[in-house]
Amino acid sequence: MEKLGLLYEGKAKRIYQTTDSEIVWVEYKDSATAFNGEKKATITGKGRLNNTITCLLFDMLHERGIPTHLVEKLSETEQLVKRVRIIPLEVVVRNIAAGSLAKRLGLEEGQALPFPIVELYYKNDDLGDPLINEDHIKVLNLATAQQVEELKEKALGVNKVLVPYFDERNVRLIDFKLEFGLTSEGTVLLADEISPDTCRLWDKDTNEKLDKDVFRRDLGNLTETYEKLLERLGGASHV
Amino acid sequence: MEKLGLLYEGKAKRIYQTTDSEIVWVEYKDSATAFNGEKKATITGKGRLNNTITCLLFDMLHERGIPTHLVEKLSETEQLVKRVRIIPLEVVVRNIAAGSLAKRLGLEEGQALPFPIVELYYKNDDLGDPLINEDHIKVLNLATAQQVEELKEKALGVNKVLVPYFDERNVRLIDFKLEFGLTSEGTVLLADEISPDTCRLWDKDTNEKLDKDVFRRDLGNLTETYEKLLERLGGASHV
Repeated sequence: MEKLGLLYEGKAKRIYQTTDSEIVWVEYKDSATAFNGEKKATITGKGRLNNTITCLLFDMLHERGIPTHLVEKLSETEQLVKRVRIIPLEVVVRNIAAGSLAKRLGLEEGQALPFPIVELYYKNDDLGDPLINEDHIKVLNLATAQQVEELKEKALGVNKVLVPYFDERNVRLIDFKLEFGLTSEGTVLLADEISPDTCRLWDKDTNEKLDKDVFRRDLGNLTETYEKLLERLGGASHV
Repeated sequence: MEKLGLLYEGKAKRIYQTTDSEIVWVEYKDSATAFNGEKKATITGKGRLNNTITCLLFDMLHERGIPTHLVEKLSETEQLVKRVRIIPLEVVVRNIAAGSLAKRLGLEEGQALPFPIVELYYKNDDLGDPLINEDHIKVLNLATAQQVEELKEKALGVNKVLVPYFDERNVRLIDFKLEFGLTSEGTVLLADEISPDTCRLWDKDTNEKLDKDVFRRDLGNLTETYEKLLERLGGASHV
């Protein structure tokens, strides 16, 4: 497998073509952004940590019967993934009220929700990734009604695996964002990443934040925080 | 029927108890507010116009088989309505992209939607009436899933009557907001008002705005605009 031309550069990753038209090469960058790109920084080690954590979690999900786009980890900051067309929806699952949900509904941050809830956001930087409903999705032709149902089901399925997985490692999974892609055959596949950039993760005893809120809210050193999380996941020697 | 003590004062109306425990007395005020109360004015005639237009439209809906809370028009600014517990959801139906929808989805204002869409907002001034989804409604216990389905169906039913009704009067119904209430027997009933305060209405030929956007966007005299609409509805002599 050979790395060819750059296909796309996002805020956190670069995607390259490969000699296999069904596979792309992903490089995790050392950049941190928040508030739709308004807050930015270069943080050495972040690319390595998110790549490592994502591979570890995607491997674990795969073992538990949840297919993902991951093909293989290539290096500290690189992975090969199946080429998919990303559905422009951010699928958010929440177990505990925090962030925008706490604000939107007037709930206390940290309040447990009576059941895991799913929210759909339109993945569109220019519009600030707004919350949308299923009629909006239909108007914009972002996905079929059946695909939306599948996304919600799959996201809740991922939650059912992740909650006990993190819990056993003394971490509470507050909420997280998933992205899905369509393969060339039209199958919906879990894609993008699952990392402390895309999850809220709190220490079970102290509520210490082990995620990007450390960066968003200036709560400490991001690399140290992500290293601490990776250790909890037993992944220090995963590379 | 006698008017008793004030039960509730909102931005646009005062609600009084009556000698009949199942009926309340509504007084439309001459106040205009926008942007969640940030913009305010007293506009002589507005209470009369909205009361008259609401009674006219609710009577028309009633005749076409859509029950409402309206019992009778009492005076230029007053009406009697059935006492209901208002469900704290604003049910918005849209035929044409405008206002917050155009902003949220990045659509051109005036662009026709491929089908009428429904949005649900949490009626909560402190939170700025946020858009919510059905999981949020369940978490906050605002309505049952069955009631939400009923609200959406009823709102689309109202749209089906209103669109041709306005069209025959050379007016395009762009979007509108409804509120529903529960009677003491648990029946869902169309409540609140339908007026140029709660609808976007554009002249079919000129796109002239015949609604509260005239106030929101400082486009002219609100009373003259609402009078013009009332004339189109044939209601000048309705009192």
